[in-house]
Amino acid sequence: MRAVDIIMKKRSGLGLSQEEIEFFIRGYVEGSIPDYQASALLMAVYFKGMEPPETAFLTKAMLDSGETMDLTGLAGPFVDKHSTGGVGDKISLPLAPIVAACGAMVPMMSGRALGHTGGTLDKLESIPGYRTDLDLEAFRQGLEAEGFAMTGQSARVVPADKKLYALRDVTATVESVPLITASILSKKVAEGADSLVFDVKCGPGAFMKTLTEARALANSLVRTGGSMGKNIVALITDMTEPLGRCVGNFFEIEETLDCLEGKGPADVTDLTLRLGAWMLVSAGLAADPGEGETLCRKALSSGAALDLFYKNVSRQGGDLKRLAELRGKHRSAHSVQLKAPSSGYIESIDAYGIGLAGVLLGVGRNTTDDQVQPDVGFIFHCKKGDAVRQGTLVADIFGKDQACLGPALDMALKALKIAEKPPRESPLVLEELSNS
Amino acid sequence: MRAVDIIMKKRSGLGLSQEEIEFFIRGYVEGSIPDYQASALLMAVYFKGMEPPETAFLTKAMLDSGETMDLTGLAGPFVDKHSTGGVGDKISLPLAPIVAACGAMVPMMSGRALGHTGGTLDKLESIPGYRTDLDLEAFRQGLEAEGFAMTGQSARVVPADKKLYALRDVTATVESVPLITASILSKKVAEGADSLVFDVKCGPGAFMKTLTEARALANSLVRTGGSMGKNIVALITDMTEPLGRCVGNFFEIEETLDCLEGKGPADVTDLTLRLGAWMLVSAGLAADPGEGETLCRKALSSGAALDLFYKNVSRQGGDLKRLAELRGKHRSAHSVQLKAPSSGYIESIDAYGIGLAGVLLGVGRNTTDDQVQPDVGFIFHCKKGDAVRQGTLVADIFGKDQACLGPALDMALKALKIAEKPPRESPLVLEELSNS
Repeated sequence: MRAVDIIMKKRSGLGLSQEEIEFFIRGYVEGSIPDYQASALLMAVYFKGMEPPETAFLTKAMLDSGETMDLTGLAGPFVDKHSTGGVGDKISLPLAPIVAACGAMVPMMSGRALGHTGGTLDKLESIPGYRTDLDLEAFRQGLEAEGFAMTGQSARVVPADKKLYALRDVTATVESVPLITASILSKKVAEGADSLVFDVKCGPGAFMKTLTEARALANSLVRTGGSMGKNIVALITDMTEPLGRCVGNFFEIEETLDCLEGKGPADVTDLTLRLGAWMLVSAGLAADPGEGETLCRKALSSGAALDLFYKNVSRQGGDLKRLAELRGKHRSAHSVQLKAPSSGYIESIDAYGIGLAGVLLGVGRNTTDDQVQPDVGFIFHCKKGDAVRQGTLVADIFGKDQACLGPALDMALKALKIAEKPPRESPLVLEELSNS
Repeated sequence: MRAVDIIMKKRSGLGLSQEEIEFFIRGYVEGSIPDYQASALLMAVYFKGMEPPETAFLTKAMLDSGETMDLTGLAGPFVDKHSTGGVGDKISLPLAPIVAACGAMVPMMSGRALGHTGGTLDKLESIPGYRTDLDLEAFRQGLEAEGFAMTGQSARVVPADKKLYALRDVTATVESVPLITASILSKKVAEGADSLVFDVKCGPGAFMKTLTEARALANSLVRTGGSMGKNIVALITDMTEPLGRCVGNFFEIEETLDCLEGKGPADVTDLTLRLGAWMLVSAGLAADPGEGETLCRKALSSGAALDLFYKNVSRQGGDLKRLAELRGKHRSAHSVQLKAPSSGYIESIDAYGIGLAGVLLGVGRNTTDDQVQPDVGFIFHCKKGDAVRQGTLVADIFGKDQACLGPALDMALKALKIAEKPPRESPLVLEELSNS
C-alpha cells in the first residue's frame, strides 16, 4: 500500500477503505508518511468529501492513535456535550452539574480559547487555584463523587488529531465537514461517553456561517457517531449575538453562578436546559426533551446543581473563598464604556466582532502561545431588542492594558447596530437532530 | 502575505496574482514555505485550475528561480521542439540537424527515460564517448558550429521545477494541465528559444490518454507561451503504436541514421519533417508548413543534416568509428523472438505495453537511480497493418539478462493484437495549433 495511491484514489473521488485510512493515519502519526502527503490528502478530502462510513473509519483510526479514558467500574450513564465554539458560550459550566445532579455522569474534556471563540478551560482557570490537568484517577474520582469532572485533553488522547489539526490550520483544509466530524468525534469518543449532544453553532460568530453548513456538520456528526454505536443528538443553535451578558473568563464564571442560582440571562438558561434535556434523553434518563427539561429545572431550583458546581471547584483546587470575594469585583483597572451612538433599538450585537475585540482585550488568543487574562472582557447592560437613547451605557469593557481599549471599543462600536424599530425575535435553537 | 491565504484563495477558486505566485514559488525554493503547504496548493490547483495569465505567472516565477541560457551574440533564430514523451520517440535526434541545416539554431535540452517513455539523453549516451553534460561555453560552441547542441539540464536551471516535480510525483498532483504547462514551458523558455514547437503525444502510450486531455494541454501551452511573448506551435500526435521500428537506446540511434540517410520508417520521417516544417515557420524561416517541409526534405536529400549529426557526435565526444562499427551489431547476447501467435493482420502494437516491457529489458527506468543499457530493446520487423502468418517474426527482443526476457516477451505478446481484417489507417498528426 502506498500513500500516493491513496491520495490519488481520493483525488479521483473514490471512497477509501478502512484499511487504506488506517494505513494512512497510522503512517502519518508514526512519521513514515510525511506532512506533504497528508496535506495533499486533506485537500483532496476537502474537494471530494467522504461518505459516512469513510468518516467513521477516519474517526476510528484517529481514536486508535492514542489512549482512551478508562471509565470501567463507574456507574454511568456517560454523556457529554460539545459545542463547535462561540462567543460568550459558557453553557458547559452550568450544564455539567445540572446533568450530573439528574443522575448522569459527565466526563467533560474541554478546550481553550482560539481566535474569536472562548474556551471552557480558560474560564475555569480564572477561578484562583482551579486545575484542569487532572490525571485519570482524579478525573474518575470527580466523576464518582460529583458526577462530573472538567479537564483538558492530555497529549496522549488522539495524537492524530493534534498533528492533523495543526497541519489543516496552515494548509487551508480546516473547513471540511468530514475532517471536522472526525476531529470532534474522535476526541469525544475517547472520553468514554456513550451519548453525545452536539451544539452546532451557526451564524456570523460561529465556525459554520450558514444554516446549510451547520446542517451538513450536524448531519455528519449524527450519522458518523451513530455508525460508531453512539447515541448522538445535534442541536443547531444561533450564534449571531454573544450568549448571555458576559464575555470574559471570570465574568462568565460569575454568569455561570447566576445561572445556577436561577437568575441567569434567559438565553443562557434556556439553552442550558434544552441541551441538558437532550443529554438526559440520550443517556436514557428521560423519555423525551420535555421530561428532561423538567428534571433539569428541578436540579436548578433545588440548589443541587449549584452545590455540585462548588464541590467540583473545591475538588479541582479552586479557592471557594476567593471565588466569593472576587465575584462582582474581579475587574481590570483598564476600562472603557461602550455607549449607544444614537437612539433606537439594539438591532444586533455582532458576536464575531465582539469575539475579535475580546482577543485584543485579553479574553482569547490568536495563537496557542498567547496568554489570557481572567478579569477582562465585556459586561453587557443591554442586549438585542433593548431600547436605548444616545449615550445609554451598553457595556463595560475591561482590557489587559490601556492601549487595547481604543481599538477594542472601535470594534465593539462597529459590532453594535441600532435601528429605529425593534428587531424581529429569532429562535436560539434552530434545528434538532437525533440518531435514535 | 501568508502562504495559507494563498492556498485558501486558490482553494476557493479565485485567481492568484503575479505577486502571490512569485511569493509562493520564491518561498518554496528558498525553504521558507514548507513542502506541506506547497502540496496543498498543488492539490488546490489540481481541482481549481489556473487561468492562462496565472499559468504564465507561475511559469515566469519558476523560470526566475534559476539560471537561463545566455545565447547573446549568437545569430539565431532559436527554435526548439519538445515532446511530452512516448515510446520509440527518437524524433529529436534527426530533427535537430535537419532544422539546423535549414538555418535555425536549435538549443536542445533533453531528458532521460522515465517509466514507459524513453529519453533522448539515454539514446545519445549509447554512442560510445558521447557527453550530454555540456557547460554553457561548449553548448554555445556547438550551436555556433553545427547550429544545434544536445545537453541535459543543469541543476541550476529552473530549480523550482525540480523541487515541485518531485513533490507532485508523491502527492498525486502530476495530472494538472497548468502545472504540466508551467513545468514544460519554464524549462524550454530557460533554454533561450524564441520559438517552440510542442509534440503533444496522445493515446495509450502517452501521458495524455485522450484527445480531450491532449487538446487541453496543447491549448494551454500555446496560450501560456504566447502570453510570455514566444511563438508557440503545438501538434497533437498519435501515440497508440511505438514510433518507428526500433525501441531501445542504441537501436534508435541506428534508426536516426537511417532517417538521415533517407531510408527511415515512414512514420518517423513524416513526423520529423512535419515538426521541422513548423519549427521553420515559427522561426520565420518558412512562410508555411508546406515550404518548411520542402526545405527540410532538401536538408535530408543533400546529406547536410546527416553531416551535421556526425559533426555533433564528434564535437560532443562521440566515437564515430565505434558508432560505424557498432551499427547493426550492438545487440545484447540475451535475446528472444516475438512471433505472431496467429495468422491475420497486425491490428495494433500497444505502445504502453512495449514501453513497460522496455523497462524490464533495460531500455528505460522505473526510478531515476536505475541504470539503462544501450544494446537492449525491440527491433520490429512488422508494424500495424502488416499481414502475418502464425509464427512470422514480428520483433527481435534484446534484454539486459536472460531472466528479463520471459516477462518482457509475455508483455509484448499482450501488446500485440492480430485481427482477421486489416485495420483502418489512422493519421499520425491529429491536430495542429499555433499562436501566430
